[in-house]
Amino acid sequence: MTSLLPAPDTGSDICCAPITKDAMSEENAILLAGKFKAIGDPTRLRLLSLIAAHEGGEACVCDLNEPVALSQPTVSHHLKVLVDAGLLTRSKRGTWSFYALVPGALDSLAAVLDTPAS
Amino acid sequence: MTSLLPAPDTGSDICCAPITKDAMSEENAILLAGKFKAIGDPTRLRLLSLIAAHEGGEACVCDLNEPVALSQPTVSHHLKVLVDAGLLTRSKRGTWSFYALVPGALDSLAAVLDTPAS
Repeated sequence: MTSLLPAPDTGSDICCAPITKDAMSEENAILLAGKFKAIGDPTRLRLLSLIAAHEGGEACVCDLNEPVALSQPTVSHHLKVLVDAGLLTRSKRGTWSFYALVPGALDSLAAVLDTPAS
Repeated sequence: MTSLLPAPDTGSDICCAPITKDAMSEENAILLAGKFKAIGDPTRLRLLSLIAAHEGGEACVCDLNEPVALSQPTVSHHLKVLVDAGLLTRSKRGTWSFYALVPGALDSLAAVLDTPAS
């Protein structure tokens, strides 16, 4: 968290307090666990990474299925899980949907895992 | 990551490069996904949080089953998943096993999710 900019608004449903600060509420744990579960899959982690590293920070299924060696329907399914978890945006242009990281979404998850400096 | 201390050695199997820096290797994605999957569960997130917030940063099953309203065997199962994922240590003293966060393990995962400051 080295940015001096205010944290992007990622919705009031996510509390950014580090996991180690206070015992987490059940409601908050359910919301956060859904996001961690979405990235708890090697293919989805690689897709996030490929999209972030792609030119302009966005990519379509047609850019992604070859690097992960999976069919387009399978890749589309994984991308939908990441969109539903609030980690990717999807925008349709012409024949293809283009996917990009939701600004601040991964940083919010990182903040939850940050432990206080010793 | 505000600590000036060197990052604890969490094993050479985990690469701390942010997910957004380069396309992630398949091997690294498998290792990291296993850790994210372990915390992709509301009960396990709450257990991590309860242990971190507990006196001395450690707790036994007997301290944890009541706050999460689950039986001791169920809590023990979840704790085992977190130990196996390299996120908790277990040390047996007398009748009980005590659990504590592996130093630096959550920070390593946070580092993977950190996106470069804009």
